Amino acid sequence: MTDNISDALSSSPSASRSVSLLGLGAMGTAFARAWLAAGYSVTVWNRTAGRADALVAEGATAAASAAEAVAANALVVTCLLDDASVGAALEGADLTGKDLVDITTGTPAQARARGEWAAARGARFLSGGIMAVPPMVGVPEAGGYVFYSGSPELFETHRAALAVPVGTRYVGANAGHAALQDVALLSGMYGMLAGITHAFALVRGEAEISLKEFTPLLTGWLMSMSPTVEQVAAQLESGDYTSDVVSNLAMQVAGVKTFVGTAREQGASPELLTPYFDLMKRRLEGGHGAEGVTGLVELLTRDGNG
Amino acid sequence: MTDNISDALSSSPSASRSVSLLGLGAMGTAFARAWLAAGYSVTVWNRTAGRADALVAEGATAAASAAEAVAANALVVTCLLDDASVGAALEGADLTGKDLVDITTGTPAQARARGEWAAARGARFLSGGIMAVPPMVGVPEAGGYVFYSGSPELFETHRAALAVPVGTRYVGANAGHAALQDVALLSGMYGMLAGITHAFALVRGEAEISLKEFTPLLTGWLMSMSPTVEQVAAQLESGDYTSDVVSNLAMQVAGVKTFVGTAREQGASPELLTPYFDLMKRRLEGGHGAEGVTGLVELLTRDGNG
Repeated sequence: MTDNISDALSSSPSASRSVSLLGLGAMGTAFARAWLAAGYSVTVWNRTAGRADALVAEGATAAASAAEAVAANALVVTCLLDDASVGAALEGADLTGKDLVDITTGTPAQARARGEWAAARGARFLSGGIMAVPPMVGVPEAGGYVFYSGSPELFETHRAALAVPVGTRYVGANAGHAALQDVALLSGMYGMLAGITHAFALVRGEAEISLKEFTPLLTGWLMSMSPTVEQVAAQLESGDYTSDVVSNLAMQVAGVKTFVGTAREQGASPELLTPYFDLMKRRLEGGHGAEGVTGLVELLTRDGNG
Repeated sequence: MTDNISDALSSSPSASRSVSLLGLGAMGTAFARAWLAAGYSVTVWNRTAGRADALVAEGATAAASAAEAVAANALVVTCLLDDASVGAALEGADLTGKDLVDITTGTPAQARARGEWAAARGARFLSGGIMAVPPMVGVPEAGGYVFYSGSPELFETHRAALAVPVGTRYVGANAGHAALQDVALLSGMYGMLAGITHAFALVRGEAEISLKEFTPLLTGWLMSMSPTVEQVAAQLESGDYTSDVVSNLAMQVAGVKTFVGTAREQGASPELLTPYFDLMKRRLEGGHGAEGVTGLVELLTRDGNG
């Protein structure tokens, strides 16, 4: 009774503390476990049935089919291999009146198409882009979150449930924008990883250089460069790419021969960085030597405005 | 008299509060100004003489030639366009007994060769790699520093003088190691900048995505990934690239099609990231799907150990 009153006070009428989850990979399993730990009623389904056993032992209900899992609850979460798997799994399910939340990794266009597909079957749709790895799920202080975009009504109805595994960040009605922001942040990370890989390739062959001493210097330098993100954003918004530039493109391009030369000397391929150096050169050749690096964004988006 | 006593107490006999600086670009000028502000006697020279005027007004002495500047003080600092400029400037100077500190940007091999060149002319040699931009010089809280490598005796003799403009970090007798660590950190930064450039290229065309909201998310995500640097270093040292891997290479390569597909959808070239994705695929094809990304360092250094 207390739970019912609490539910009535904290949630809209159509919300409930129950969820169906399709897809029990590492991430899906972590989500299911977080909901179980929070006292939710969880129905699970996985193409390979054995994956559900441990969760059933922890209190989950295993559905015999995806359609049965969908039928069990209003809130249906898919966390599958890819978008095609979502279509295949839900093929025979009745989605009428369902709230489908798809946290499967995919592109913005896939998310938008899946949203239209769901709408045509009578379901509200929310797409999620996960900014966390499984060990961060159920650990609020780890700072993981999921970008959500699509139906604002669905998000409002289920925001309490969605916030159980990791934090939530709703980024608008365009169903593709959760995936887009997710991919954008992860892309930034891959660039950073490429730089880190190159940095270690340069120094690791030198017995006299201690990685224990070098590593905090690399971390510290990368952290100290983070305000560059804000500067690039501010310049993209103002359209003035030359303000507050302390190391201009002409100076930076002059240094490229040292970077490439050092890599060659150390027996390290410069292949991870040369595309960026080439982009700097192209921008300089375009007459933008007084700019910093913001203008490279325009070269990357061929028509100049994305 | 007080100054002399203070000098005798705080420095070795051959140290003095005077320095000759060759090269008055933005960085050289900032260094000269920092020494002047600290009460040092500063003799300056620049190939184009007019550059010295402002510093002379602030108390510096302008030398008529590089040789005259070298003759004026035991400590001679070069901050020129490139290594060839250092050789050209010092061609007619008598370096016997001098302490030459070269903070000109160059490769490790250039620094080592310059050190041998200086030794053959009777000078001690220290090479510097500057981890700062000119506005950080003379501003200790800005955190800038210079890597120094080469003669440990020279560094000990002049460490107080060298610490005036920005912090110092001595990294060993190998004259090339200051340049190497400098280039390694800056290379890491260029990778991060490439990732940031790609991230903005993905989102900037979307009117509904506010860069003001997106930017702190990108910064926060990059910062949260910084422990990866330590993990890569630890794995390189242990040789075990599969321990504590939460997102293995097989999973990451499976996601590449989403990253490239999203770039295509957004009209952004994936050229800055494809070399890294290609490297991940090559490592996966080599049978290392259970690893994280550390093994990519080996692929970059063709012989496997740099």
